[in-house]
Amino acid sequence: MNSETVAARHEQARQDYEALKGRGLKLDLTRGKPAPDQLDLANGLLTLPGEGVYRSADGTDLRNYGGLNGIPELRELFSRSLQVPVAQLLALGNSSLAVMHDTVVHALLSTVPGGERRWVDEPRIAFLCPVPGYDRHFSLCERFGIELIAVPMNDDGPDMDVVERLAAEDAGIKGIWCVPKYSNPTGVSYSDEVVRRLAAMTTAAPDFRIFWDNAYAVHHLTDKPVEIADVLAECAAAGNPDRVFVFGSTSKITHAGAGVAFFGSSAANIAWFVRNLSMGTIGPDKINQLRHIAFLKDEAGLIEHMNAHADLIRPKFEAVDRILTDELGDTGLATWTKPAGGYFITLYVTEGCAKRVGQLAKEAGIALTPVGATHPYGEDPQDRTIRIAPTFPILAELEVAIAGLATCVRLAGYEQQLA
Amino acid sequence: MNSETVAARHEQARQDYEALKGRGLKLDLTRGKPAPDQLDLANGLLTLPGEGVYRSADGTDLRNYGGLNGIPELRELFSRSLQVPVAQLLALGNSSLAVMHDTVVHALLSTVPGGERRWVDEPRIAFLCPVPGYDRHFSLCERFGIELIAVPMNDDGPDMDVVERLAAEDAGIKGIWCVPKYSNPTGVSYSDEVVRRLAAMTTAAPDFRIFWDNAYAVHHLTDKPVEIADVLAECAAAGNPDRVFVFGSTSKITHAGAGVAFFGSSAANIAWFVRNLSMGTIGPDKINQLRHIAFLKDEAGLIEHMNAHADLIRPKFEAVDRILTDELGDTGLATWTKPAGGYFITLYVTEGCAKRVGQLAKEAGIALTPVGATHPYGEDPQDRTIRIAPTFPILAELEVAIAGLATCVRLAGYEQQLA
Repeated sequence: MNSETVAARHEQARQDYEALKGRGLKLDLTRGKPAPDQLDLANGLLTLPGEGVYRSADGTDLRNYGGLNGIPELRELFSRSLQVPVAQLLALGNSSLAVMHDTVVHALLSTVPGGERRWVDEPRIAFLCPVPGYDRHFSLCERFGIELIAVPMNDDGPDMDVVERLAAEDAGIKGIWCVPKYSNPTGVSYSDEVVRRLAAMTTAAPDFRIFWDNAYAVHHLTDKPVEIADVLAECAAAGNPDRVFVFGSTSKITHAGAGVAFFGSSAANIAWFVRNLSMGTIGPDKINQLRHIAFLKDEAGLIEHMNAHADLIRPKFEAVDRILTDELGDTGLATWTKPAGGYFITLYVTEGCAKRVGQLAKEAGIALTPVGATHPYGEDPQDRTIRIAPTFPILAELEVAIAGLATCVRLAGYEQQLA
Repeated sequence: MNSETVAARHEQARQDYEALKGRGLKLDLTRGKPAPDQLDLANGLLTLPGEGVYRSADGTDLRNYGGLNGIPELRELFSRSLQVPVAQLLALGNSSLAVMHDTVVHALLSTVPGGERRWVDEPRIAFLCPVPGYDRHFSLCERFGIELIAVPMNDDGPDMDVVERLAAEDAGIKGIWCVPKYSNPTGVSYSDEVVRRLAAMTTAAPDFRIFWDNAYAVHHLTDKPVEIADVLAECAAAGNPDRVFVFGSTSKITHAGAGVAFFGSSAANIAWFVRNLSMGTIGPDKINQLRHIAFLKDEAGLIEHMNAHADLIRPKFEAVDRILTDELGDTGLATWTKPAGGYFITLYVTEGCAKRVGQLAKEAGIALTPVGATHPYGEDPQDRTIRIAPTFPILAELEVAIAGLATCVRLAGYEQQLA
């Protein structure tokens, strides 16, 4: 492209951007929240478990204290999709992030199986963070002074050559954050090969743990649900049975703030977790767990419910792809992911332009997840990654926001080419 | 009493105990759990918040993520009884024990306001434990290697001469556990003088905290509700505004496992707590908070509901006192407390006899809270304290259990006198 063409395109982008600003938009693409129509799907919960209904299948009065592991029937329902045997799967409170936080706290303050000391007594602790990744995983670690080491994501999961090298040589590395299915924010799912290598790799730390945040286990957008390898089984087969902590929740299945979180692992890890858990609570909200079983009923009910979600959000993902293709497809200024599930799309702009895009969008009234949040310490070294969360806005607003975002990408990109 | 009389009474007790054992009882006085008829009082919750009801008074959709502080209307309802201004009161998850645990964790891992370092970086941490006290407070601390220092309880709260001396001379002492109203397990309520001295005393540690577990704030058994002094206000007035962490919950108001817990403190402590909380969760179950407001409605609704509880459990407390009086009143072998609220009665037997009583009761099929659990490390140095939890059994079974327990007290007491 000669400089005249660039100048012309820049001028067009500038005019489009001025028009965009003139519209006085106030649109929000920041967080991966379900939209109200998705929440409506689970409104049945609002009158459940129902009059006089408070016993589990085994007759336990769930209104009272106790039942640290959660109710068996809900653990059973999620056992298959989370790929954890019922006996090793706990149903807990309303937030899987809280369970991850508590698991890190437990490891800091009580030696994990196979460990030599509490993490808090280590001179240094680091976690591997495939990037782009989930900002709340990072901030949770940062709070405790855990060092964050970025590793690149490929189309089939983290770059295992890098992960294997770092894990083998650095005993300070105690963990890795993984969102293995429809990853936040790329939508990538881990290949069987990646899962096997994670399970089998040599780690310098004897108490290395995979934090397996299977947040989107049943959150498919196509009629070909992605199946990932069974990480617990792979770890056991590789002789590392205690290597993985599995997390899941109903947050993006039923009501985001009022769901049930899950924790799964080896028998030894579960015993360790429950021992710590028992010091801090008499049990989770079992009535809410019963409410969830009364609502979802069984595997078929869960699948049907998730299909209804997919029907509501698929048009939004398609709209993002369509608009980005229309607006940016022939510009060479951006690429983006086309997830088969989950809650996010990653937009990659020209290196060094992402922050500028975020700033332009903000000035035009389009709020994005802070650029950089996809990387440890909020710093994307290539400054090119933008997380798009398409689910929450209504379709018409999403379309306006994405078209506006594309305008910002064009303006920032051509600005750079002119500079 | 001459030795013949003792021998005769021992023989009578022995015969009574053999008869008791012959009945093959299986009764449980171990835990302070509400009885099913108490839980029935809150069965309205099972169909609430109701069809299409999911917004707070300010219009927020409570089904989604967010709202870290809990919903304002529930915080408002409990502000008066917990004696914490709404702005400084958080409504959280289903367990106040979990909130206490998390607060200790936060203090271990993030320096509290006024502190010089994280508690985990201190060479030694200790908590004062008025005894008899609540075993779960003790075990929560033990897990983290926090040293437990017993201090005596008087009829108006902890022995403040001892507390003041220890707190002033030992900078390792970072906290004190208090159940200020209808204390677990004595039923004692703190006098205004004790509250004021706690608030005003000199502490060697700049980051000393009172853990104020106001578990029985509205759990009255008489028509003269005990009012305790406002500890937050007293701390502020004494120039120690950040000294106290207040905990409360609806566990023994609505459904024990499915309620709402509260945390209250100074503005600085709340900011510190919320900053830590925000690293580990996106928010509490706000629908359950809405459910509680829909059910309890207002202060009058709360009082009416607690009166219904009192009507159910008052006969149980009265039965314990009546039977102990009948069976032990003239023996000189025991004294016991007569709480005006709360969940427990403390039975003091002859020094050196409590473990023997527990063993005899167990062999007769009457399960007690493990003798010693009322003291740090499970050791009652005088071996004389027995916690009675009268609420859970039905009245007829409670009467049998207490009569049986009295038989065990007689047998153990006369055994000792003969030895």
